[in-house]
Amino acid sequence: MYPQLEVDPELTERTTKVRLLSSHSDAQVALGANSDAKAAKRAPQPKWKRALVRHVPVFQWLPGYNMEWGIDDLITGITLGLTIIPESIACALLAGLPARYGLCSAFIGPLIYLIFGSIDKVIIGPTSLVALVSVQFTVGRPIEFAFLLTFLSGVVQIIMGALRIGFVFEFISMPVIKAFSSATAILVIESQIKVLLGIKYLVPGLISSVSTLSSRIGEANMADLVMGICAIIFLLLLELLERVARCQKRSKALRICCRYLSTSRNTLIVFIAGIVSYIWLGYREQLPYSLSPSAISSLPNFTVPSLTIVTPERSYSFWQILQELKVGIIVIPIVGILTNISIGKLTPKGLVDTNHELLTVGLCNMFGSCVQAMPSSGAFTRYAISTACGLKTPMANLYLGIIVLLALSFLSPYFNYIPEATLAAILICSIFTLLDFKLPLRLWRESKRDFGIWLLCFCVCVLFGVEVGLFVSIIVTALHLLFLWARPEILVRIQEMEDMQYISVLPGNGIYFPAINHLRSLVLKACTQADFKITVVIDGHKITGLDYTAAQGISKLSSDLCRQSDASSSILLILYRFPEHLQHLIDVTDNLVFCESEAKVKEFLTQESLRNGHINLTAHIRASIDLGYKIDIE
Amino acid sequence: MYPQLEVDPELTERTTKVRLLSSHSDAQVALGANSDAKAAKRAPQPKWKRALVRHVPVFQWLPGYNMEWGIDDLITGITLGLTIIPESIACALLAGLPARYGLCSAFIGPLIYLIFGSIDKVIIGPTSLVALVSVQFTVGRPIEFAFLLTFLSGVVQIIMGALRIGFVFEFISMPVIKAFSSATAILVIESQIKVLLGIKYLVPGLISSVSTLSSRIGEANMADLVMGICAIIFLLLLELLERVARCQKRSKALRICCRYLSTSRNTLIVFIAGIVSYIWLGYREQLPYSLSPSAISSLPNFTVPSLTIVTPERSYSFWQILQELKVGIIVIPIVGILTNISIGKLTPKGLVDTNHELLTVGLCNMFGSCVQAMPSSGAFTRYAISTACGLKTPMANLYLGIIVLLALSFLSPYFNYIPEATLAAILICSIFTLLDFKLPLRLWRESKRDFGIWLLCFCVCVLFGVEVGLFVSIIVTALHLLFLWARPEILVRIQEMEDMQYISVLPGNGIYFPAINHLRSLVLKACTQADFKITVVIDGHKITGLDYTAAQGISKLSSDLCRQSDASSSILLILYRFPEHLQHLIDVTDNLVFCESEAKVKEFLTQESLRNGHINLTAHIRASIDLGYKIDIE
Repeated sequence: MYPQLEVDPELTERTTKVRLLSSHSDAQVALGANSDAKAAKRAPQPKWKRALVRHVPVFQWLPGYNMEWGIDDLITGITLGLTIIPESIACALLAGLPARYGLCSAFIGPLIYLIFGSIDKVIIGPTSLVALVSVQFTVGRPIEFAFLLTFLSGVVQIIMGALRIGFVFEFISMPVIKAFSSATAILVIESQIKVLLGIKYLVPGLISSVSTLSSRIGEANMADLVMGICAIIFLLLLELLERVARCQKRSKALRICCRYLSTSRNTLIVFIAGIVSYIWLGYREQLPYSLSPSAISSLPNFTVPSLTIVTPERSYSFWQILQELKVGIIVIPIVGILTNISIGKLTPKGLVDTNHELLTVGLCNMFGSCVQAMPSSGAFTRYAISTACGLKTPMANLYLGIIVLLALSFLSPYFNYIPEATLAAILICSIFTLLDFKLPLRLWRESKRDFGIWLLCFCVCVLFGVEVGLFVSIIVTALHLLFLWARPEILVRIQEMEDMQYISVLPGNGIYFPAINHLRSLVLKACTQADFKITVVIDGHKITGLDYTAAQGISKLSSDLCRQSDASSSILLILYRFPEHLQHLIDVTDNLVFCESEAKVKEFLTQESLRNGHINLTAHIRASIDLGYKIDIE
Repeated sequence: MYPQLEVDPELTERTTKVRLLSSHSDAQVALGANSDAKAAKRAPQPKWKRALVRHVPVFQWLPGYNMEWGIDDLITGITLGLTIIPESIACALLAGLPARYGLCSAFIGPLIYLIFGSIDKVIIGPTSLVALVSVQFTVGRPIEFAFLLTFLSGVVQIIMGALRIGFVFEFISMPVIKAFSSATAILVIESQIKVLLGIKYLVPGLISSVSTLSSRIGEANMADLVMGICAIIFLLLLELLERVARCQKRSKALRICCRYLSTSRNTLIVFIAGIVSYIWLGYREQLPYSLSPSAISSLPNFTVPSLTIVTPERSYSFWQILQELKVGIIVIPIVGILTNISIGKLTPKGLVDTNHELLTVGLCNMFGSCVQAMPSSGAFTRYAISTACGLKTPMANLYLGIIVLLALSFLSPYFNYIPEATLAAILICSIFTLLDFKLPLRLWRESKRDFGIWLLCFCVCVLFGVEVGLFVSIIVTALHLLFLWARPEILVRIQEMEDMQYISVLPGNGIYFPAINHLRSLVLKACTQADFKITVVIDGHKITGLDYTAAQGISKLSSDLCRQSDASSSILLILYRFPEHLQHLIDVTDNLVFCESEAKVKEFLTQESLRNGHINLTAHIRASIDLGYKIDIE
């Protein structure tokens, strides 16, 4: 009846395109609108060129690059640069590394992502999330472990991308991602509160950290706290300016001014606090608050990281390093890529090629480790800034990289003047965006199961570490999906067709081996209650898949129906509307038939009722009325 | 229209029964046949009595026990007893234990199964499968490890049964079970060939065992080999008598005689070989072939096994024992219960209450460990015998247990006269039933995927051990099921309704979070090719489930359709026939509507085509003919 252009998902993407294209280009004739211009656009390109454009997205936008985009990108790049510098320093400190190593990630990542990155608004660099997770694997170990973790994360990401197993990320559901990021926010905030209070210790785990903090609360340094709180208030106030910038009533100049003040708030506070420290140190020898650890002022060397680590105390072979890093080399790549995927889903394009993203971030990390960078990924804070500033293309990465490089070459000595409490304030304020407690409330109202997953993930993340929480909740959600195959929805009803009763069985999904016993027991239970008198019809029109075990189970069901009834009669099992390509799997027995049409089913039912004795319609109606059902007789 | 008695699988089993019963008892009035007798049968019993009958099946058949059953059961019991004695000795030797310990399992298991067992034809006792697996965990360790493994297996089985997680066994598909048992057969046969050759060594793994065997083939003892081959020929000949027994043409006496000769063949060969050894030893001091290890003649003491093991060499704490037994305490319970479930599926009742079976076999093992038994389970060989002898009730277990106890008390000294090669021959002949290479051939023809699973399981079992093979194949099949949720069947077509084109999307299954990106990308791809001009209709009538992530994905899809088209127009997303209880999860956006009827869809399509410009029917038909489609105009 209809001109159906079936797009079989099993077919390659290419075929799909071709099929739909042909339908489309013909339909265009009818539509008649701007079809010429578009047809020109779709002129066939050589294969290598298409592959190049697909794998190296810089070729997609560079040819059409123009002045207008350039200005927007320059402004965004500079703003991002000014944001990423203090953020990187803060993340490096969170990861237990000197400031410099954060900045190294902040210039190499964007430069590589500029060429290979497929999501415009992802800005690669250190993030508090990755820093928080990686510190668990590198804490108390030589600093080389951090670079090697970066290197190995990159390698694992590239391997995952090359093997095209990016689809496994689809097994991380939104409640899990949200709970995971909220838990991270809580952990980061907790870890920064001690910095705000000027108390120094390194204890793994939230509970022991909180108990240590409460026992040492007396050691709190008021100057650090005051500095931190001032910084937080300053940041919050400047964040409020964003609202002014959005208000259409104000003059344009004021709005632009407010936006830049707001987006560069991190840099401003670092700058102001740095100047305060600098001037103060001109008068006194020591400050009442602590400054960030001293940094070496120089560009990093490009050296391929050694796979063995030798320190004065001991040397580690590659195997020993792997044993020390444990699951870190799996967790860091996954955590790193998760943010990028989440950001990708927020962008208008909406679709993320996870494998390409894995390869790109893997490259960033691999090259990053050569310039002593920490593991890096995209960040929501930077996504928000690039959206606010109106980023057009990844070119902003170039300007951003240059600014970070300049900072690294010339400003490093001045990083020592930044108070630690200021950096803590920046981290706390930026991580707040990840805290989302509206979602669990909604889930509680609308989907208790999703809420349960959220709660589980959140609690395990907070109590036992984010990597454990992520792992546990992925396993639990996967087990739930498996359970759905074991207990699919199967509707068993006693129906009637022209006064002949039959047991109608309607499986809602494909029937695979874990479900077949469930199906059999449901049918047999219904048959037992109906005294093995009436025919069973399994309606297979919703069945999309069947494996050998399940097919055998259906054959067995038919012999069950044979054996359980009296020796003289056996119940007929009608398989109605079963997909044809699945029928050959089922062994045909004496009392099993396939039917494609309702008329055929009726024929079989009539035959059976003649053989077994007809069910009295009038008596049945009385029975049905007794049961509270109403039957329409046509 | 129909009097529907919906059996929601989510409801408890109880409700299901009640609902169907009420329909049934009313229907009975109409049917009018033997309803009174059955109604009396179904007279309500007190709740505790029903629970007792359900959990202690002995009460199901004992009240109605009669003479006729008794005779059949007695004959079966004696035959089984005569079979299980040599088999138990052989299995004990296979497990690296003295003969006595096999017999201990062979009397305690049946006596407990008599009371609690739910599958008539399962006869608990040592099996070569369990023996083969358990020897890997106990080899080279003190003998107490074997009893403790029995005890812990029982505890694990009882815990699994009590937690009602028996349904996990449904995740073991038939190809996996078949490959697993074929591999076991291969491994048992390989392990017995060296016994037939009279070569003694203990090497784990098939490859190293085969290489050891081939390097030491020169040490083969001809007398052992001759004895073994004679025994095998004898057993095969007596097995052939079974065919005579089945032949209806022969006289009844001959048939009965043949059947008993055939079913007691194991005992006969042991008896004959034992007598030969006994007489021979009267003349010579040593025999040319090896006899089974010496056994102590006494009934076992009933002692609760100690959870610590102290040997002259070293002592093991409970924790150390667990570390030594490793995954054994999980694998043995699973392997043990697998056979029972498989047998249960072969019986006419066909349905196995896995949790009840776990509890029962768990009890058998727990009590077994108190009388120094090895881990035990049902066996296919014994199932075949009890079917052939016409077992009526589990009462046969009683006679069987008594015979084994008698053998244990009085015959133990004579076990020393049984040649080892005879026992090897018994094991080889009995394990042959498990070898099934017809299935993989059929799978190869009909379901390549199932064949792949079979091959994987078989190869891994043979090369790396049965427990590894079982684990790997369960994981692989589970991953495949998960993958089905990530890439479900989704049919995307361009359809038309009264000359209005639309993109029809028909998901075949429930849409859960792993699939939502796939769905979105398929729809967006189709929309891109159709230039974002025509409405998208997602037909949800096959959807049985939706989670929060997927629901959000659908809302996002609608905003994708909004953003990607020109600012002026947005594509309408019609969600057609979505189950009502899932609708509230989806955020309603401007361009997303729910429709229940086709008329409503048509209304929306008309509205949209008026808004976006009508698609010319005539031009469209021309285009369709170009494409090779034919359209019927009504």
